[in-house]
Amino acid sequence: MSMTREEIRNLCVKSLEEKMVGTEAQNIDNGNGFYRYFFTNFPDLRVYFKGAEKYTADDVKKSERFDKQGQRILLACHLIANVFNNEEVFKAYVRETINRHRIYKMDPALWMAFFTVFTGYLESTGSLTDEQKAAWMALGKEFNAECQVHLKNSNLPYVH
Amino acid sequence: MSMTREEIRNLCVKSLEEKMVGTEAQNIDNGNGFYRYFFTNFPDLRVYFKGAEKYTADDVKKSERFDKQGQRILLACHLIANVFNNEEVFKAYVRETINRHRIYKMDPALWMAFFTVFTGYLESTGSLTDEQKAAWMALGKEFNAECQVHLKNSNLPYVH
Repeated sequence: MSMTREEIRNLCVKSLEEKMVGTEAQNIDNGNGFYRYFFTNFPDLRVYFKGAEKYTADDVKKSERFDKQGQRILLACHLIANVFNNEEVFKAYVRETINRHRIYKMDPALWMAFFTVFTGYLESTGSLTDEQKAAWMALGKEFNAECQVHLKNSNLPYVH
Repeated sequence: MSMTREEIRNLCVKSLEEKMVGTEAQNIDNGNGFYRYFFTNFPDLRVYFKGAEKYTADDVKKSERFDKQGQRILLACHLIANVFNNEEVFKAYVRETINRHRIYKMDPALWMAFFTVFTGYLESTGSLTDEQKAAWMALGKEFNAECQVHLKNSNLPYVH
């Protein structure tokens, strides 16, 4: 299956229709829910969240910090989906994301891994078609490629 | 003239084609150029840029800080243009922008004023049609409306 950028964009945007950002309780839960899924299924990665290294899904659910963080990461996913057909804007957003994460000293392999986590979340709480999942992984591959180029250009650890 | 969200989006995106973000010298200059225009035409607002309160356009041109800051603001403009037809994503991006600017204690009237500065920049260095300018001001009006709602909800000074 080969998809155009436009098709990838439209499939990813569509897959987020039931995970809209916003200020209502459901919107907040759409973001918080990502971290409940993340912390439950990838507990080793909690180490990147200072003070929340031992949080359970229930701790996340009650956490205002993860309500806010959930909106931020969900917005980022909406943005990369929506602008995927504008390649230079997409890549500039990737570089800006890397710049803002510099202080967290992340394992550079996690940028690609994120898309396994995120599609897992979408699958866990709603419907994600095989085509939508393939679109997200294709987007993730390009996201990750620009991450590694920019990490290298920034003299930071990167995946060869 | 009344425009749909889709028309506004397309006009704004089109107006940025000659101001693309990126890593080449021209792309960097597209962002730095905004601050050269800004500091020349609105020198009173330099007060928000600690350490650069007395910068001339020439100082900005030689400044790596404003190369980076220029890319960031230009990317933000590309993002708001591209997602304008996805209203909830647009509004979520506005709120995130407000959250990130909280530390600068900005005059809340500056959020609308920004669009006069930005369209002035686009006009000064290229071609901006009357229709594109009207589209940016229509986008700005919605951007500002969500800014003021979110400032109020955040217990921060806002424009009534």
